[in-house]
Amino acid sequence: MQIRDEFASTALLTDQYELTMLAAALADGSAHRQCTFEVFARRLPNGRRYGVVAGTGRLLDALTHFRFGDAELAVVEEFLDPATVDWLREYRFTGDIDGYAEGELYFPGSPILTVRGSFAECVLLETLALSILNHDSAIASAAARMVSAAAGRRMIEMGSRRAHELAAPSSSRAAYLAGFDATSNLEAVRSFGVPGAGTSAHAFTLLHSGADGEHEAAAFRSQIDALGVGTTLLVDTFDITRGVATAIEVAGPELGGVRIDSGDLGVLARQVRDQLDGLGATGTRIVVSGDLDEYAIAALRAEPVDVYGVGTAVVTGSGAPTAGMVYKLVEVDGIPVAKRSSHKQSRGGTKKAVRLARATGTIVEEIVYPAAGEAPSTNGFQVRELQVPLVRKGAVVDGVATLAQSRELVARGLVSLPWEGLKLSAGEPAVPTTFLG
Amino acid sequence: MQIRDEFASTALLTDQYELTMLAAALADGSAHRQCTFEVFARRLPNGRRYGVVAGTGRLLDALTHFRFGDAELAVVEEFLDPATVDWLREYRFTGDIDGYAEGELYFPGSPILTVRGSFAECVLLETLALSILNHDSAIASAAARMVSAAAGRRMIEMGSRRAHELAAPSSSRAAYLAGFDATSNLEAVRSFGVPGAGTSAHAFTLLHSGADGEHEAAAFRSQIDALGVGTTLLVDTFDITRGVATAIEVAGPELGGVRIDSGDLGVLARQVRDQLDGLGATGTRIVVSGDLDEYAIAALRAEPVDVYGVGTAVVTGSGAPTAGMVYKLVEVDGIPVAKRSSHKQSRGGTKKAVRLARATGTIVEEIVYPAAGEAPSTNGFQVRELQVPLVRKGAVVDGVATLAQSRELVARGLVSLPWEGLKLSAGEPAVPTTFLG
Repeated sequence: MQIRDEFASTALLTDQYELTMLAAALADGSAHRQCTFEVFARRLPNGRRYGVVAGTGRLLDALTHFRFGDAELAVVEEFLDPATVDWLREYRFTGDIDGYAEGELYFPGSPILTVRGSFAECVLLETLALSILNHDSAIASAAARMVSAAAGRRMIEMGSRRAHELAAPSSSRAAYLAGFDATSNLEAVRSFGVPGAGTSAHAFTLLHSGADGEHEAAAFRSQIDALGVGTTLLVDTFDITRGVATAIEVAGPELGGVRIDSGDLGVLARQVRDQLDGLGATGTRIVVSGDLDEYAIAALRAEPVDVYGVGTAVVTGSGAPTAGMVYKLVEVDGIPVAKRSSHKQSRGGTKKAVRLARATGTIVEEIVYPAAGEAPSTNGFQVRELQVPLVRKGAVVDGVATLAQSRELVARGLVSLPWEGLKLSAGEPAVPTTFLG
Repeated sequence: MQIRDEFASTALLTDQYELTMLAAALADGSAHRQCTFEVFARRLPNGRRYGVVAGTGRLLDALTHFRFGDAELAVVEEFLDPATVDWLREYRFTGDIDGYAEGELYFPGSPILTVRGSFAECVLLETLALSILNHDSAIASAAARMVSAAAGRRMIEMGSRRAHELAAPSSSRAAYLAGFDATSNLEAVRSFGVPGAGTSAHAFTLLHSGADGEHEAAAFRSQIDALGVGTTLLVDTFDITRGVATAIEVAGPELGGVRIDSGDLGVLARQVRDQLDGLGATGTRIVVSGDLDEYAIAALRAEPVDVYGVGTAVVTGSGAPTAGMVYKLVEVDGIPVAKRSSHKQSRGGTKKAVRLARATGTIVEEIVYPAAGEAPSTNGFQVRELQVPLVRKGAVVDGVATLAQSRELVARGLVSLPWEGLKLSAGEPAVPTTFLG
């Protein structure tokens, strides 16, 4: 259950077939061919206009823990030959990785990660790389839409209870990366330094019931005594209007906030704002929660909401719980390779990518081109190379984006989108991608 | 990254507000009131007919590791008073837990888990309990529909790459619980004893390309040399008909299987079956994969498919990535309590449940009734009590269902459903639930 053990191995977070392919390739000598594998998404889910690359930092950390110790070897010995087991015992990734910086926007076909090395060392990383990038990018891509719909209001991620217990901290991190302000999840606070936040639950108010009835005021007083008048009181356990009145009676007009978790949030927010203002609590914030997604957040834009608490929708990717990225072999010993039996065709060859922008910063096109070829002509647009070095000879390079830097990158990316790109409705990617070569 | 550390703590896999509620309740004395919390789902997602309870075994394991050591206390000290921190240092759950056995079917309002103890000790478990039950039940509920659509054909879960890396083994476990036969995920093999399986990827065939072209035969020969003739060859890298011919040329008619991962799987399965039979490979199995969900599986029922490989759809709950269960305070010091400000009303009081069935075993109704009251009349139907003891005075009881027993329970549950309950289309729950009391 530990997710911070510095000595733990990530080597079994993978699929059996990677190891059986390794065994066959070691036996026939092809394991040592120099390969390029590429991570990309064939399409954006559900008519999304853009995606947000997330998980790169976690992947680089997981890569350094991809080691086969005795415990891991005991599992794979069951189905592998001794030579393969011996090879795994010494396994270290010694190749190079380039990729889009964490926090960069991406579009269909963007070469998000390029892994180069022997077939043997690269093939083993497929599942780990995809698991991390697909999960974290799905959350960050949904979260970015919510952040842009919230138009600057404070956002708290509180979806842990609707996510796998060990995925929840990563979801908190991805939401923060995309521009959320805080999380309810304590492991995300510890592991990733995401700011923590929280209010209280209906259970706390109900706890202060007795044979003689409800004592909402007692619950509020207790919370203020323990947490101070800056706390946020949950006012919708019994009757919202009475709850707000009781909250200000108990706390005074300096109360930090009230939370509404049910009902027609727009109507209630206006009503509660009027009531608070009438009671002199003009600085008391209104926090809303309860099945919010990007559409509900946008619908509340005209209402006096100060803080959004978002749960299920953000941790499940708001209808797209995986980014659908794939990890494909694109080059062997310098020769481009590609599957070609169906619509699932891939483009062979190692690639690079640039994004073109107007002088205003608004992006107009992404160009994916052969890494061995010349950089494409830019037609007078500003041009930015999208891939950055992440790993050289197996070692993570200096200067990989921190979580704070990645958060900045998302914010800059959202500003760079043409206005159609920020529409919540389904449609085409915000900019076209041109594939050269 | 370790998920098997026996000494690791699960205590921070929770939400900050549980700890601040604890602090306030310790300060005002209400923390020691005897409470009942109940886990239930208000509704089934997307018009599903039934849900499958999963995660109970993992939750009981996580509960025994819910301890605040120095590392955990260092995080919560940042926002808690010293008395609360001292209380957490000694925290052990000492209460009782009853619940539906893992693998039991559930319906809206089923009291899936009932947690009894002091407010303090119970409130801390909300997020952990919900994270595990919501995730695992979402996967198992989707997987059970796929298993029933597959009508006895072999099912392999291979979705790890589309799930968070540490959630993937739990997804494999939940799919196996629901009736899948095997998983690609090695950590699931190690942690939960799920049988492992795998074929190979297009990358392996492409690896055997050279400047002089493609060498599919060399890739197939290598795989057979390493893994034996019982292996499954992936035949759709270049041209399926040629791939099948090459596979049998290389392996002979004793080849274990061929996998098709793209195209119109129904048409291709028939065509490949004819081709295999014509080549004398009448025992060679056909494995299909590629974005299969319960509907695609059902659509292939008339085709000569032997094995389904299912990825994205099963690990993302096929459109319902969380079961939407909640953890609600229903009783304080013997008095039923319930929120009542909105449509999100809960039913107060500790409950039990029975399920009624005809003599044939087909279920007809679920009855949820006050635990303090009399068992409901059964109108001559067979009756089965649904809650079983899971924890007594903080200790997991003997006889909690093993994974194998839970798998049996799902299988029996699916057989017990009225035929409407197995329909894949959206509709009402398979049986009505009556709430007494």
